[in-house]
Amino acid sequence: MKLADLSVTDFVNTLASDAPAPGGGSAAALYGAMGAGLTAMVACLTQGRKKYAEYAEFAAQVERRGNELKNRLLAVMDEDTAAFNQVSAAFALPKDTEEQKLARSAAIQAGLKACTLTPLDCMELAADAASLAWDLLDHGFNQSSASDLGVAFLSLSSALRGAWLNVLINLGSLKDETFKANARVKGERLLASGLKLSEEGYQKVLELVE
Amino acid sequence: MKLADLSVTDFVNTLASDAPAPGGGSAAALYGAMGAGLTAMVACLTQGRKKYAEYAEFAAQVERRGNELKNRLLAVMDEDTAAFNQVSAAFALPKDTEEQKLARSAAIQAGLKACTLTPLDCMELAADAASLAWDLLDHGFNQSSASDLGVAFLSLSSALRGAWLNVLINLGSLKDETFKANARVKGERLLASGLKLSEEGYQKVLELVE
Repeated sequence: MKLADLSVTDFVNTLASDAPAPGGGSAAALYGAMGAGLTAMVACLTQGRKKYAEYAEFAAQVERRGNELKNRLLAVMDEDTAAFNQVSAAFALPKDTEEQKLARSAAIQAGLKACTLTPLDCMELAADAASLAWDLLDHGFNQSSASDLGVAFLSLSSALRGAWLNVLINLGSLKDETFKANARVKGERLLASGLKLSEEGYQKVLELVE
Repeated sequence: MKLADLSVTDFVNTLASDAPAPGGGSAAALYGAMGAGLTAMVACLTQGRKKYAEYAEFAAQVERRGNELKNRLLAVMDEDTAAFNQVSAAFALPKDTEEQKLARSAAIQAGLKACTLTPLDCMELAADAASLAWDLLDHGFNQSSASDLGVAFLSLSSALRGAWLNVLINLGSLKDETFKANARVKGERLLASGLKLSEEGYQKVLELVE
């Protein structure tokens, strides 16, 4: 069963249990999906109001893009758990002969690469969503939803930082130095740009509501 | 239907829609529930391992308390939306006579108080969960789950800051100065203590996995 099909209660209970997955990686992807979703919600509530008529067309674009990012991030939530299960299955492979040992080791390394690429996808999508939420902050949006836009930025900050922890913990066990170096460069770039947007966005909203 | 009974996909889609609730307040409570849940998960995975045998008893206590906080925060998710709906219903009351106007205004103010108290509950529970996650970090825990504990701290940081935005936006429309002052003092105290724990906890985990 897909995680996205579980009820919210069952999802959080499974997260809290000793089931090895879902864990922090899928949680980070869900924070990303909720951040993109809240951005779409604020864009939606900015349309059809006389007071915000001048921003309506732009808000409609933000809503569409926010929903696309939300759907991609919901898919990443399940992809992260699938990648984790791939590594678990590799660890369970037989290791009696030299040939088996080599095949098992290769399968573990392939799984760990998947476990690194999935949170990098999460970071890329969350950074895009943070940029989208800033567009709304820059152009104009329904001020009654300021706290919702603020929570969107916080969600994206947690998605970025949480996915980055998952990249780092997998890099520790990977052997392919070129892959590791590329993943680190990409992750550090996304973290720096995305976190600046999401933390500054939150601060700006905090000033609006204080 | 309770939000907690929706599928994860339906919950996120409703969040993203122009349905006025759920919004950032319920999202913040869900981040809190996931933070407490991830703390329980790490405590759970610390038990039954020879390597961590000395922490097992303590981890069992953390697991129980984490699950209690998770369940309370899941309930707050629905309470937040119920409080929002209470205000919406009050705004829809008739305002033709002076008497109706007074009754409507009193109902709006009562609803806004509920909308302030619910995120304050969220902050209190999230601060407790951050303290619990620190207990695990201090005593010892299964290091393979370090990134999960890190994401727990990030979730609790977002829960605290997100709920605080919801307190602030409601204080802006409240008239009872004593209530406002008390809510502000309590919220600022919880934000300061809880945020220190959750951000420092995240930093400590980041150093472990880097």
